[in-house]
Amino acid sequence: MIGVIIMTPTLTPTPEDRFTFGLWTIGWNAADPFGSPTRGPVSAVTAIHKLSEFGAYGMTFHDDDLFPFGCSDADRRAAIDALKKACDETGMVIPMITTNTFSHPMFKDGGVTSNDRDVRRFTVRKILRNLDLAAELGAKTFVMWGGREGAEYDFSKDIRVALQRYREAANLFAEYVIDKGYDIKFAIEPKPNEPRGDILLPTVGHAMAFINTLDHPEMVGLNPEVGHEQMAGLNFTAGIAQALDHGKLFHIDLNGQRGIKYDQDMVFGHGDLYNAFSLVDLLENGGPDGGEAYSGPRHFDYKPSRTEDITGVWDSAKANMRMYLLLKERAKAFRADPEVQEAIVATKQDQLAQTTMGADETVADLMANTSVYETFDADSYYDGKGFGFVRLQQLAAEHLMGARG
Amino acid sequence: MIGVIIMTPTLTPTPEDRFTFGLWTIGWNAADPFGSPTRGPVSAVTAIHKLSEFGAYGMTFHDDDLFPFGCSDADRRAAIDALKKACDETGMVIPMITTNTFSHPMFKDGGVTSNDRDVRRFTVRKILRNLDLAAELGAKTFVMWGGREGAEYDFSKDIRVALQRYREAANLFAEYVIDKGYDIKFAIEPKPNEPRGDILLPTVGHAMAFINTLDHPEMVGLNPEVGHEQMAGLNFTAGIAQALDHGKLFHIDLNGQRGIKYDQDMVFGHGDLYNAFSLVDLLENGGPDGGEAYSGPRHFDYKPSRTEDITGVWDSAKANMRMYLLLKERAKAFRADPEVQEAIVATKQDQLAQTTMGADETVADLMANTSVYETFDADSYYDGKGFGFVRLQQLAAEHLMGARG
Amino acid sequence: MIGVIIMTPTLTPTPEDRFTFGLWTIGWNAADPFGSPTRGPVSAVTAIHKLSEFGAYGMTFHDDDLFPFGCSDADRRAAIDALKKACDETGMVIPMITTNTFSHPMFKDGGVTSNDRDVRRFTVRKILRNLDLAAELGAKTFVMWGGREGAEYDFSKDIRVALQRYREAANLFAEYVIDKGYDIKFAIEPKPNEPRGDILLPTVGHAMAFINTLDHPEMVGLNPEVGHEQMAGLNFTAGIAQALDHGKLFHIDLNGQRGIKYDQDMVFGHGDLYNAFSLVDLLENGGPDGGEAYSGPRHFDYKPSRTEDITGVWDSAKANMRMYLLLKERAKAFRADPEVQEAIVATKQDQLAQTTMGADETVADLMANTSVYETFDADSYYDGKGFGFVRLQQLAAEHLMGARG
Amino acid sequence: MIGVIIMTPTLTPTPEDRFTFGLWTIGWNAADPFGSPTRGPVSAVTAIHKLSEFGAYGMTFHDDDLFPFGCSDADRRAAIDALKKACDETGMVIPMITTNTFSHPMFKDGGVTSNDRDVRRFTVRKILRNLDLAAELGAKTFVMWGGREGAEYDFSKDIRVALQRYREAANLFAEYVIDKGYDIKFAIEPKPNEPRGDILLPTVGHAMAFINTLDHPEMVGLNPEVGHEQMAGLNFTAGIAQALDHGKLFHIDLNGQRGIKYDQDMVFGHGDLYNAFSLVDLLENGGPDGGEAYSGPRHFDYKPSRTEDITGVWDSAKANMRMYLLLKERAKAFRADPEVQEAIVATKQDQLAQTTMGADETVADLMANTSVYETFDADSYYDGKGFGFVRLQQLAAEHLMGARG
Repeated sequence: MIGVIIMTPTLTPTPEDRFTFGLWTIGWNAADPFGSPTRGPVSAVTAIHKLSEFGAYGMTFHDDDLFPFGCSDADRRAAIDALKKACDETGMVIPMITTNTFSHPMFKDGGVTSNDRDVRRFTVRKILRNLDLAAELGAKTFVMWGGREGAEYDFSKDIRVALQRYREAANLFAEYVIDKGYDIKFAIEPKPNEPRGDILLPTVGHAMAFINTLDHPEMVGLNPEVGHEQMAGLNFTAGIAQALDHGKLFHIDLNGQRGIKYDQDMVFGHGDLYNAFSLVDLLENGGPDGGEAYSGPRHFDYKPSRTEDITGVWDSAKANMRMYLLLKERAKAFRADPEVQEAIVATKQDQLAQTTMGADETVADLMANTSVYETFDADSYYDGKGFGFVRLQQLAAEHLMGARG
Repeated sequence: MIGVIIMTPTLTPTPEDRFTFGLWTIGWNAADPFGSPTRGPVSAVTAIHKLSEFGAYGMTFHDDDLFPFGCSDADRRAAIDALKKACDETGMVIPMITTNTFSHPMFKDGGVTSNDRDVRRFTVRKILRNLDLAAELGAKTFVMWGGREGAEYDFSKDIRVALQRYREAANLFAEYVIDKGYDIKFAIEPKPNEPRGDILLPTVGHAMAFINTLDHPEMVGLNPEVGHEQMAGLNFTAGIAQALDHGKLFHIDLNGQRGIKYDQDMVFGHGDLYNAFSLVDLLENGGPDGGEAYSGPRHFDYKPSRTEDITGVWDSAKANMRMYLLLKERAKAFRADPEVQEAIVATKQDQLAQTTMGADETVADLMANTSVYETFDADSYYDGKGFGFVRLQQLAAEHLMGARG
Repeated sequence: MIGVIIMTPTLTPTPEDRFTFGLWTIGWNAADPFGSPTRGPVSAVTAIHKLSEFGAYGMTFHDDDLFPFGCSDADRRAAIDALKKACDETGMVIPMITTNTFSHPMFKDGGVTSNDRDVRRFTVRKILRNLDLAAELGAKTFVMWGGREGAEYDFSKDIRVALQRYREAANLFAEYVIDKGYDIKFAIEPKPNEPRGDILLPTVGHAMAFINTLDHPEMVGLNPEVGHEQMAGLNFTAGIAQALDHGKLFHIDLNGQRGIKYDQDMVFGHGDLYNAFSLVDLLENGGPDGGEAYSGPRHFDYKPSRTEDITGVWDSAKANMRMYLLLKERAKAFRADPEVQEAIVATKQDQLAQTTMGADETVADLMANTSVYETFDADSYYDGKGFGFVRLQQLAAEHLMGARG
Repeated sequence: MIGVIIMTPTLTPTPEDRFTFGLWTIGWNAADPFGSPTRGPVSAVTAIHKLSEFGAYGMTFHDDDLFPFGCSDADRRAAIDALKKACDETGMVIPMITTNTFSHPMFKDGGVTSNDRDVRRFTVRKILRNLDLAAELGAKTFVMWGGREGAEYDFSKDIRVALQRYREAANLFAEYVIDKGYDIKFAIEPKPNEPRGDILLPTVGHAMAFINTLDHPEMVGLNPEVGHEQMAGLNFTAGIAQALDHGKLFHIDLNGQRGIKYDQDMVFGHGDLYNAFSLVDLLENGGPDGGEAYSGPRHFDYKPSRTEDITGVWDSAKANMRMYLLLKERAKAFRADPEVQEAIVATKQDQLAQTTMGADETVADLMANTSVYETFDADSYYDGKGFGFVRLQQLAAEHLMGARG
């Protein structure tokens, strides 16, 4: 038997693929808790040109990535203008920006939920200022990662009161955007821990529940990150599916993580490969019509390993896109395979798509129907009526491995 | 220095403490994945009498705990009547019941989200029947633990479709309760995994987000379990605080877990002791007036270790209540300690209770106030303005250890 | 570009591949902590015939898998003889057997380290009896999984004393084998937890350290299991590499696990796919000459998911072997790829194979050589001298995915 | 009932308690992966004086903590001399020192196992130089934490070859100490991950197994750290017990960790309190005669939380010692309590201390004794012969909480 894999042009990224990168990813200086930087900074302008050359669609950044905390207005403006010029030259866009409310010592107990009111007020101003910049740059998504909103000790902070402050801030930002007439939506990025012992809104679930308590829930969604959910041992694809169900997948952070440990931020697809496969399949083929389930940027929030020099930085940037495109190719082939289609039906997924109750069936109808319960042959599920999940998983594994031509 | 601890009568449980136990806890036969039962069953009647003798308030159960799956109506009725009689004799109540939709082979792919529609319909009927029983017994809370609703493999189930089926079922149950005029609310119990590789609605956050998509969200809340959140590495007290903020703490399952591993179901307080301490403090002293933040049953959902015989079963039941009462005593002393009160203020928690914006302050006001941002001395947070969290944690530790008389 | 993958006959298992299965794997009744069995037993004779038909090399078992705990000598003998006949008919072998010292209630605190001396003595006898059976069946490896040797509570057991009892037992068994002249070696199987809260000898490291304290360390090695190490978040391939370095890889248990949670026992390759890839590469190509690093059975210790009926059981058995062979094929192609070979050299792995000190170099020589330290240009590692690990990982990913023809 | 706790002078640390601190702990600048320093450095001289004032016994350091990487010989000497003077003035000792082989960019792939041979040779020289310093300062323990010895990707490094290089280096260092006649022993500090994805010798078990392959295993032991084992979900007290059994507890790092996540380095006793309690009990009361099981320094390797200023730094330093002394007091009371003594016997721990075989009993004797196996009443362990572990755990909990006067 011979299997032929066609390496189509789809493995070469183009702006149509909507790949974006944080400036802080390729620009990371590779300092970690036990070591000093191994690399110098990459300027925003260099980053824009390089990423454009690789086929990316856009770039994103924190305010402090582009111009240092506390810099003069003139320096800030110069940095912004240089970025805009680079975008003009390359066609790159800035679809999302975000605010650094975690690096400076003043944020040591958080930004919008710091016990220190002065810090909270400063943070509000910093974020409002950055919203203006988002509007200026045409960024439609404004990410809020509250990485310092949390605690190490249960008695450090009354969590309910902290959530009130979080809500006050989120409501204020939404009001500001409405007042200004900006075309901006917010995307909260959950994370369970690190750098705080426990972070507020630790998972996609907690963040979505919180959003429902806001004044303008429709303006606020999620920016889930692969590794952050996996740091809690949660299934990222399943979390994204719930976010899609709830209409809250506003943006996405793609990267790689190898289990429950510190935040690794590896290349997308270099972590849990099966979950990356099902994620790409969901994003690309999971829409109601079998098309895209998510049409926003495919945003890489990763860190080039500290062992790498600038060559490794660019190699890793390209690897993210290549992994995504490879997985997309594999997912298309998986969905197109008649044996897979038959195996999916054998698992009764078509039945799951049917409502449990009949079209006009009432509870009274159901109760009157003794075949449903009273005379139902429950024992037929012992030594019978298997679901065939392992067979389907093996087909998925073989498609992932390119073993079915 | 001499510290005196008064062992008050509060360490003896009474029904006023609202301690309840699942019949399946003390009645567990101690079978596990690698071993057969080490104990025989405990009848519901024996359990009621024993628990009452120990000072408990009530008992809870799954339908199949009280009468076997598939038993005759007569046997079912006899078991119910015997339970009611025991309750009458002892004054014990049944404040909550729940439905087993996970043990029988037919539930191998779940109940309300099984790919198999026949299973889903049977499950609906089983739950409706159990709702009638809840009403008959005066149980006001109906717990739904969807322990089999999930998957081992990402391609086994379209999670979004599964959530639609979950929603269909939850809506149907709420409608039924409304139609029947029952005084019953629902409490979803999240769990991240085990017995499925990944379970739907894995955390308190995911479940609350889902509830917001239901037709009658006000009728559905949570039954969070200590160990289930801790199996995802999440801070249970923080999760309960968020549930309280969102008005969703309808019931609670107390037990002990030692980190991210299989579901241990140890005695409450025998797992993460610090988190148990802050939890009891929150439940007992965390209300807006410093009183109770939660007034429902303190429900123990634990398993007496497989090493124990019936003596150990009863010892463990009593240990749960004693640990709770000890922690309650410690939390009261902690809150009453002037040094603790001063230390809490030193952490600026009083500032967190203030709104970030002034009473009538507008965004324009904030922006006009240059002391907030433009002239703010951010650098004063370097080598200064520490939060004193470690000192407070040490005070908490010493109170927990009874070291401050 | 077109990639061609040749599906060679190597994907069809043969006895030369040395695939073996535990009788308890395909024979698992699919009971779990929250559910009753979904399948009936598979007899040893059926198992032998089926596995032989699929191309397996042998089967393994616990004593109690073949004949029930406490059965008569006649029943035991009948079961053994039936097994031997099936082996004769098929050519299947029994290269390993092991003893169940964990299922019966008497083992609730362990076997050879139970606090109860009567239990320990019974356990010794049960194991000695099983050693005779191993010898009779020609099994050369005798696995010891001390799954119940452990505790839930730190004060339940003095761990040092328990290790003394463990050692006493292991020494006694080795002595017995020597006395009897059996050609048998022991393989300890570590596991961190489940069914006990903490198990003695929790990792490959702990077990190897313990073995060094035995009277006959050369007779005792390891039987590491993929999922057991991964339940502690450890890298299985790295653990196997250390075991090989120490000469202790006597046997291996292959299966799949998805992170730190309960013991999943999935099909090999259905868990952490990257680690499965590097493991097969190490076993097959990691010898000093580039050949096999391990020549023993490739033993699958997995559980067919509880959702499956007997069709799924056999599908899953075949999936284990197919995944191994696919990964072996991918690993061969990876090693043969000139670009991979170049990329490995670029990571300086050839330098790692050189000794750090020169052939005749003394410490004095080293110290006298100022280029080593005093004048060494350490700063050249900043913004330079990257290791190229990400590039190599991307090549590995593409080979794993069959994307490099 | 009234319980009286005597707060004895034992809660005030004295040098006799042998408390030591790393200079890098109180001197940590509080930079983390997401934030810049919040504190300035603490000089070694200040640290010595402050720690002495608090009742500590000694201090430890990495070479680069005392004098910067690459500094001049004169600066290095000045720093050393200042430290020695401070020690002379205070009576503080330097019982251990260690080498930084992880912070500088040159160590990005490790020190003694870097793929880059030049790095390995430099590392050897750096460590040899530091051994001379250890000898000069009278440090008898030389810790080796190989935090960068590892990999993120399975194909980055041949682990077996890396272990050969690790061994080469360890043997060379031992040889050097012997040649020089130094009174120094080595203590390897294991860690599972962070800053590398997987670190070599990830647990106490792996490190002890490796030590057994060295030329001078008697010169090399362990420096286990509470949080490092707990990052792998392992029971630290059990690991220490095994290290004691194997004679390998050469030094110990005390701190706090809250489960499987990034390395938290909290105050000792602020993490898993039960495990800290059993650890102190083991160290203080676990010797063969009920006395000390470990007589070396009680070394704190923690980080004052980033939220703290210098006041919090000193508060946290004191909290470490106070927690240890409180736990020691609780452990003494626990061991002295007659009810505890009775409860321990009830768990049959006295039987565990008996050998399984009789004094002169042979295997033949055992086999001839049918009461051991053939006629043994195994079924008596069903519904009987419970071990009473939960009762003992509850007693431990109450002692820990100071609830038994």
